[in-house]
Amino acid sequence: MTKKAEENELGFGTKTSSQKTRLINKDGSFNIDRIEQSRLGSASIYHALITMSWRKFNVIVFTYFVIINVFFAGCYYFSGMDGLIGWAAASEKDKFMEAFFFSTQTLSTVGFGRISPGNNISSSIAAIESLVGLLGFALATGLLYGRFSRPVARLIFSKNAIIAPFKGGTAFQFRLANKMRNSQIIDMNCRVTLAKLETENGVKIRRFRPIELELKNIIFFPMSWTINHPINEDSPLWGMCAQDMKDADLEFLISLNGFDDTFSQNVNTRYSYTHEELIYGAKFISVFSTNSKGQTSQDLKKLSDYELVKL
Amino acid sequence: MTKKAEENELGFGTKTSSQKTRLINKDGSFNIDRIEQSRLGSASIYHALITMSWRKFNVIVFTYFVIINVFFAGCYYFSGMDGLIGWAAASEKDKFMEAFFFSTQTLSTVGFGRISPGNNISSSIAAIESLVGLLGFALATGLLYGRFSRPVARLIFSKNAIIAPFKGGTAFQFRLANKMRNSQIIDMNCRVTLAKLETENGVKIRRFRPIELELKNIIFFPMSWTINHPINEDSPLWGMCAQDMKDADLEFLISLNGFDDTFSQNVNTRYSYTHEELIYGAKFISVFSTNSKGQTSQDLKKLSDYELVKL
Amino acid sequence: MTKKAEENELGFGTKTSSQKTRLINKDGSFNIDRIEQSRLGSASIYHALITMSWRKFNVIVFTYFVIINVFFAGCYYFSGMDGLIGWAAASEKDKFMEAFFFSTQTLSTVGFGRISPGNNISSSIAAIESLVGLLGFALATGLLYGRFSRPVARLIFSKNAIIAPFKGGTAFQFRLANKMRNSQIIDMNCRVTLAKLETENGVKIRRFRPIELELKNIIFFPMSWTINHPINEDSPLWGMCAQDMKDADLEFLISLNGFDDTFSQNVNTRYSYTHEELIYGAKFISVFSTNSKGQTSQDLKKLSDYELVKL
Amino acid sequence: MTKKAEENELGFGTKTSSQKTRLINKDGSFNIDRIEQSRLGSASIYHALITMSWRKFNVIVFTYFVIINVFFAGCYYFSGMDGLIGWAAASEKDKFMEAFFFSTQTLSTVGFGRISPGNNISSSIAAIESLVGLLGFALATGLLYGRFSRPVARLIFSKNAIIAPFKGGTAFQFRLANKMRNSQIIDMNCRVTLAKLETENGVKIRRFRPIELELKNIIFFPMSWTINHPINEDSPLWGMCAQDMKDADLEFLISLNGFDDTFSQNVNTRYSYTHEELIYGAKFISVFSTNSKGQTSQDLKKLSDYELVKL
Repeated sequence: MTKKAEENELGFGTKTSSQKTRLINKDGSFNIDRIEQSRLGSASIYHALITMSWRKFNVIVFTYFVIINVFFAGCYYFSGMDGLIGWAAASEKDKFMEAFFFSTQTLSTVGFGRISPGNNISSSIAAIESLVGLLGFALATGLLYGRFSRPVARLIFSKNAIIAPFKGGTAFQFRLANKMRNSQIIDMNCRVTLAKLETENGVKIRRFRPIELELKNIIFFPMSWTINHPINEDSPLWGMCAQDMKDADLEFLISLNGFDDTFSQNVNTRYSYTHEELIYGAKFISVFSTNSKGQTSQDLKKLSDYELVKL
Repeated sequence: MTKKAEENELGFGTKTSSQKTRLINKDGSFNIDRIEQSRLGSASIYHALITMSWRKFNVIVFTYFVIINVFFAGCYYFSGMDGLIGWAAASEKDKFMEAFFFSTQTLSTVGFGRISPGNNISSSIAAIESLVGLLGFALATGLLYGRFSRPVARLIFSKNAIIAPFKGGTAFQFRLANKMRNSQIIDMNCRVTLAKLETENGVKIRRFRPIELELKNIIFFPMSWTINHPINEDSPLWGMCAQDMKDADLEFLISLNGFDDTFSQNVNTRYSYTHEELIYGAKFISVFSTNSKGQTSQDLKKLSDYELVKL
Repeated sequence: MTKKAEENELGFGTKTSSQKTRLINKDGSFNIDRIEQSRLGSASIYHALITMSWRKFNVIVFTYFVIINVFFAGCYYFSGMDGLIGWAAASEKDKFMEAFFFSTQTLSTVGFGRISPGNNISSSIAAIESLVGLLGFALATGLLYGRFSRPVARLIFSKNAIIAPFKGGTAFQFRLANKMRNSQIIDMNCRVTLAKLETENGVKIRRFRPIELELKNIIFFPMSWTINHPINEDSPLWGMCAQDMKDADLEFLISLNGFDDTFSQNVNTRYSYTHEELIYGAKFISVFSTNSKGQTSQDLKKLSDYELVKL
Repeated sequence: MTKKAEENELGFGTKTSSQKTRLINKDGSFNIDRIEQSRLGSASIYHALITMSWRKFNVIVFTYFVIINVFFAGCYYFSGMDGLIGWAAASEKDKFMEAFFFSTQTLSTVGFGRISPGNNISSSIAAIESLVGLLGFALATGLLYGRFSRPVARLIFSKNAIIAPFKGGTAFQFRLANKMRNSQIIDMNCRVTLAKLETENGVKIRRFRPIELELKNIIFFPMSWTINHPINEDSPLWGMCAQDMKDADLEFLISLNGFDDTFSQNVNTRYSYTHEELIYGAKFISVFSTNSKGQTSQDLKKLSDYELVKL
């Protein structure tokens, strides 16, 4: 493969040389701006509803419930309250409230029946409202299932990446572990690419260099994993001191994938470390011990712990 | 691999030589006629309900709701309106309407109770109707979920493909981008096959020639991607002028696949450019700039923009 | 790979030599008997409910609905009918029917309210019944979705496989097509293994021989596909006449897989032809023509059509 | 690949040397202790609800139903029972019970209507409760679907693994079969790794050695499968007697994957045999026979049956 092809492989192209900020955010999203061609379609709304926070989701559902009921309450009210049987209200405001609560009972199909539709107009509105209600909750069912069943590789990463002593030389290292006690990720695979400003013909250009890992595949992932890139002559980090790494605006772009055992689906995670999160001269502290039952034990609270060392 | 095998690989076989129209439509479907062996089965109805437009889907659901209710209203009406308690109607038409709205309240399980079934016949019909209603809305739940959660690679393509100057020679190019801001496609892969009329022993035969891309795989897809096929001696486009391309009834058949990060599923897209959508002698205008926050910015409105150049 | 390993690859092992019937049924299931170790678990019931016919599924749902209601009607009846308010029945049978229909209205959550629970016992039963009802219909929702959304490679195969003239020699051929007009299968892959009785040391043993196909992969599958195995010296069919094929109890075991574009999932199909479905000396009749719109047209009704030829 | 890399491949790392217990439990989970970094998130709760036993799941659903109703009964009761219309209770306890059962009828949307909300406060609570109820049952629908549709490779393994005579030497063997009559697993793949204490520089270290299988892939899996590892000079078991195997604290770690035909998803299973489950000197008894219909029949009750033999 030619040098050119290798660089493009990552998909960032050659247009990021003047980017001043990190390329991949801490949540795995890309830090690239977009000017959209068009409005968002339905699949996009679904995406948004599936990935937003629970707080936001609940607010939207509740707001939607209120708006729909206000709309249908208006329909009953303006089509004539004599279409409804059983209400007892004196003021106009109370009449509207009766219509509103009748609407909630129809939309949710609870239908107590104290108030009921008495003529064709109100009966038709109620029929349509119950249909809307059922479809709405059908949708909510799908959204809730979609939110919960979306396989997410819940990985935790060490807060910093380090340049550590390794076999007489040095190595780039970071640690990760499965956040979830009760689900397994199988056939984990890790790829790391280094984004690095290089001077070519006097111009600073951001280049993307894949870096070699000592081990990039594991079958099982029950224990924390230290990703290790030995810095040898083939490494794009070869010969760089701490200052060089700052100047080159280093960013380590990490792509991980595996097979989620609970959801039986492939999962994919992105992460990155910038030079600001890189500790030059450090060693990770072991997370392992043996507990009283004779099991190997790992303390994930120590995942980010390191001690400084001279290189 | 033999020449024969390569041609067949695409799956169009050797029977398309007299096809006068494009092979792949703009929506990715195949422009091949079929005479069916048999009626459509249940899976096929599901396919149709999942892939049809929202407008059509909503009309079908509403129509189905009305038809079912007319059917059950008929059941109540013809089995004797004295089976229902609580209605108050003078004319036969009004009686039927009472039966109809009672039916809607039973099917949707809203059950206000102003009217209720009073004998075994009407109670049995109501029991069956509520079962039908619940199963019907169970089905609607599944359909709505299916419609929303179907992973679709929402890609946008440049309106035209171009023959552009490239490294002293020329190249075939088109551009694409991810339409969705909030979902990512990982491990994108692109394959392009050229459909081309060739004269063999005086007969025009449509041949399928895979064409080599400068880059056919990218790990991440946050930025627009220019697919580039350099026209060298190995290219089936080598030595063809604009007129040759028209005469050969060229069509570029494109197959793209990747992994949708939100749905954690593989997605697949087809597209094609015919010679009528091919600009001979053009250069794409860059979509990239750097915004005020130091991010690389891409303007997707410019995705199809090109300027004419001499080749 | 050793000869032994190749034979085992298919998974039928070496114990089928005395099998008198076909190995793979026409519906793709395996014709192997099992004596079970234990009762079926929950996943197995789900499998059965997902894969059974619609007729059987509907009967089970309806029967379940009736049984549950008879059970709860019994609960209301035997815990004392005075716990229910609003019923009007003279005979014991009519009382039970009132309890039964009250039960149906509670299970389906329609709740007309003519009859309602009036004391703690009947109210508790009604509360539990409505919970059972909701969970039951939650289950039905899942089952209906599961039944519809299960990706099935709906392929149609030619009724017979044939031994056809091919390039001066002969070839084993059969045809298949996608049954569904509105869904696509991408990256189709076909594997054929020949099951064949061979005499080794005077004993007849069933051997499994993979056979080479002229083309085993296609990217798109919009048109019918003729699977073609040229019978050359490497073929296990080499030198066999029609009678030899009968004597060897031939069965062609076919495994197909692809990617379903609508469901975005891999699909898998098995099929087989025995020597009784093999026509020795035949040629398939073309299904292709060009229609008035200039499209290539295929008539799937002709998929099984062949004409006899001398070999 | 270097020796080091091979050992790490499995993902257990080099920190398990002092582990006294088995590494993989009989249910496929890993026997590694974890000290968690943080509380469990929502996906984790979903995992737990999807994978727990049916008994536990039902208890949780029922308990949740009762708690929610007690909460809303409290809301109605403390906001003033005059907000509810139609109840008839003398004691405070009976009033609360009326509120409680009214709540159950609202949450389940059954809404009989004997009691109904009569003012704005109670109507608002009822509207919110019916919304909570519908969302709760939407969630239950998703959970039930998730529980049932989760593809699980239901494999049964022979109770023991054996060291059997094989081609003049010996072999490590175990047997497995598909537990489910009505679902198929396609493209089964088996990997076995041996965990073994080895003495290096006087220190006992647990090493992980992949072991070679005579056959590690099968296309179809309709019959029981005997996994066979011939113990030759390349085997890490070479030259070990029964006592050596005990001393080395052997554990055979098994990873199986395949494609589930019913769910159209990949499935993954782990299993392990420790030296305590290993019979040194044994032969499996055949499970195969031919039944009266000429089918090959397998008796899965015999899957674990063996007879002792001298090696």
